[in-house]
Amino acid sequence: MPLVHITRRERFSAAHKLFRPEWSDEQNRSVFGKCANPNWHGHNYELWVTVKGEPDPSTGFVVDLSALGRLVQEEVVQHVDHKNMNLDVPFMQGRLTSTENIAIAVWERLEAPVKALGCTLHCVKLKETENNHVEYFGA
Amino acid sequence: MPLVHITRRERFSAAHKLFRPEWSDEQNRSVFGKCANPNWHGHNYELWVTVKGEPDPSTGFVVDLSALGRLVQEEVVQHVDHKNMNLDVPFMQGRLTSTENIAIAVWERLEAPVKALGCTLHCVKLKETENNHVEYFGA
Amino acid sequence: MPLVHITRRERFSAAHKLFRPEWSDEQNRSVFGKCANPNWHGHNYELWVTVKGEPDPSTGFVVDLSALGRLVQEEVVQHVDHKNMNLDVPFMQGRLTSTENIAIAVWERLEAPVKALGCTLHCVKLKETENNHVEYFGA
Amino acid sequence: MPLVHITRRERFSAAHKLFRPEWSDEQNRSVFGKCANPNWHGHNYELWVTVKGEPDPSTGFVVDLSALGRLVQEEVVQHVDHKNMNLDVPFMQGRLTSTENIAIAVWERLEAPVKALGCTLHCVKLKETENNHVEYFGA
Amino acid sequence: MPLVHITRRERFSAAHKLFRPEWSDEQNRSVFGKCANPNWHGHNYELWVTVKGEPDPSTGFVVDLSALGRLVQEEVVQHVDHKNMNLDVPFMQGRLTSTENIAIAVWERLEAPVKALGCTLHCVKLKETENNHVEYFGA
Amino acid sequence: MPLVHITRRERFSAAHKLFRPEWSDEQNRSVFGKCANPNWHGHNYELWVTVKGEPDPSTGFVVDLSALGRLVQEEVVQHVDHKNMNLDVPFMQGRLTSTENIAIAVWERLEAPVKALGCTLHCVKLKETENNHVEYFGA
Repeated sequence: MPLVHITRRERFSAAHKLFRPEWSDEQNRSVFGKCANPNWHGHNYELWVTVKGEPDPSTGFVVDLSALGRLVQEEVVQHVDHKNMNLDVPFMQGRLTSTENIAIAVWERLEAPVKALGCTLHCVKLKETENNHVEYFGA
Repeated sequence: MPLVHITRRERFSAAHKLFRPEWSDEQNRSVFGKCANPNWHGHNYELWVTVKGEPDPSTGFVVDLSALGRLVQEEVVQHVDHKNMNLDVPFMQGRLTSTENIAIAVWERLEAPVKALGCTLHCVKLKETENNHVEYFGA
Repeated sequence: MPLVHITRRERFSAAHKLFRPEWSDEQNRSVFGKCANPNWHGHNYELWVTVKGEPDPSTGFVVDLSALGRLVQEEVVQHVDHKNMNLDVPFMQGRLTSTENIAIAVWERLEAPVKALGCTLHCVKLKETENNHVEYFGA
Repeated sequence: MPLVHITRRERFSAAHKLFRPEWSDEQNRSVFGKCANPNWHGHNYELWVTVKGEPDPSTGFVVDLSALGRLVQEEVVQHVDHKNMNLDVPFMQGRLTSTENIAIAVWERLEAPVKALGCTLHCVKLKETENNHVEYFGA
Repeated sequence: MPLVHITRRERFSAAHKLFRPEWSDEQNRSVFGKCANPNWHGHNYELWVTVKGEPDPSTGFVVDLSALGRLVQEEVVQHVDHKNMNLDVPFMQGRLTSTENIAIAVWERLEAPVKALGCTLHCVKLKETENNHVEYFGA
Repeated sequence: MPLVHITRRERFSAAHKLFRPEWSDEQNRSVFGKCANPNWHGHNYELWVTVKGEPDPSTGFVVDLSALGRLVQEEVVQHVDHKNMNLDVPFMQGRLTSTENIAIAVWERLEAPVKALGCTLHCVKLKETENNHVEYFGA
């Protein structure tokens, strides 16, 4: 049977900074550069969630994209949009808010509920700026 | 020898709707949502066809991209551009016109003639809106 | 006082065709080309609505963008998204659904309610494909 | 003599929030919505600076674009990139950080030094998200 | 009667360099920077041609976009695509190939034949890179 | 441990042509089409370099993106930007400057120094025009 990948894009705007509280400002600045600005900075993040599965013969759908969109909204976007990734987001507590770590955390949020929709999470792609993005395919 | 992937983008604009004729309008609406609008809706589809192979030492080409472009035009775009995917397209007859099913049908149209060009079809990617796309890598 | 222009983008996907019912299919085809396909075709339209005014000193806003977005949704997008521009849209009845005419009709829908938001409609820009768009600045 | 407009794009990523300190959190939330999040949020801003003038016959240039780019970097981008628009930016002190107000402030920063480059500032365009942007043409 | 602007995008890829033959390489390098590289460099240019007029009541068109597209192809694109702007393009002979000068030359090529199509040339916009573009509205 | 892919985009503008000096102009034209124009043409190339590795627990980074960006600049962009790919680029000597071959050459330039940054080169993606790109994943 044919396996098809389908991708839903969602977007969010958030503040963050990269720093370790146990380091001095100088250490943070030397490792994280301008991303360590104490008063934060922010991004328009773009998030692509790719799932895979066999199209249902009665609908032609791997997944109901509206349901997938709602899931990504409820599990991720509502928790991060117009928020501070370091201060306001429970699932980022205790984690550096690098793009890599956010993508891993998004995967963890989505893997089980995507399964409950009847398909398999394949990739979380997160774009921080037009020049930088990460992809995570699970552990 | 190096294996390289090369991708050609083509575009088409088409009408379609998602519905099963044996279902009532209410059933179609409840499963397919606004995509079931009886009088159709439409999209600017973007299609990326990726092939793979070893570059020919005398040309540096995996494939003559003009030939690949012509092939995608002849096998796909001329049959769907400014058409109704449900009514006008022979290779979609009897199939729901979900993005998944269109991508699978495009793969079936292209697999053999791409082989005849001396390379291998790797992926058909089809974007329906800026928020949704599918990828098919063959059965 | 400073006059600032602010623009909100919305999107919709719709079917349409260009044809005059009093003309034969041949006449329609000769004037409108592939846009006259009897069974329709469709597009992902992008709509930019630009308004102008002086920023309110207490908010810094020319207009509440959420309110402007809701207005464009209610007056335009809900009437055209996943619809047939020729058959389903009351404000296009009796009009050829050229991009030019849709932009003029959108202007007519928005001019008064934008005024009611406390600013002035400046431009309706409508993109039909990545190669074609129109702009209308009022009569 | 021909008057030509030329535009340079620069980008910056910044945190901000919309709020008036003399208002309660509830008032700020009711007026500014999610943009009032106390712990900030942020954006990838895109900035287009358009100047106009007659091309110099010996170079074909309205302005040396490298010089214009450096100017926008020095007068604007270095003060806002990876910063907090409310806390870190001297030229936004005492101003609500709406997109409108940032565009006006950028104009004020650039008008005189653009003149010193031998051309005239025509427009400051600032895009906050893919759905929202403002343009300012001066008072 | 309503005046509508309509824009057609075309693209071309060309080599060029900025230099004055009566100057030394050092002088050219100091004025034109890396754009003076003796062995040329090149760009994917994007060209937007905007015309204005009143929509024809029988078609809804300001202009037949296919005819406008063919005109831009015949008058401009066929002369510059996959060419050297300095060596291969008759209408750039004796002119520095700055983006400004190319836009002016394109205007001169298009103004009369656009008039012959029954509308008026409004703007030639030429984008050299994602960070730089010019607009010319005529003398 | 989680393996994450991270991608850095860089850009360059270069001239090139496709031709074999031992062939006649006619042979070159028949094989390479307009890409064989004797006086060159050019492109705005976009280059995406993807590396993979496990995020460092102390930084959250697979790699310091600034260091990766500098590496791509030093090993690739400075050698090709505003250059002639056929005449000016030592690492393309003796090679046809097809997009495929440039991507392979970029891989060869980057594989070892990316390893020295503590991660693994995964993909070099090179886009020649908006309709064409290649990807190379190593031999």
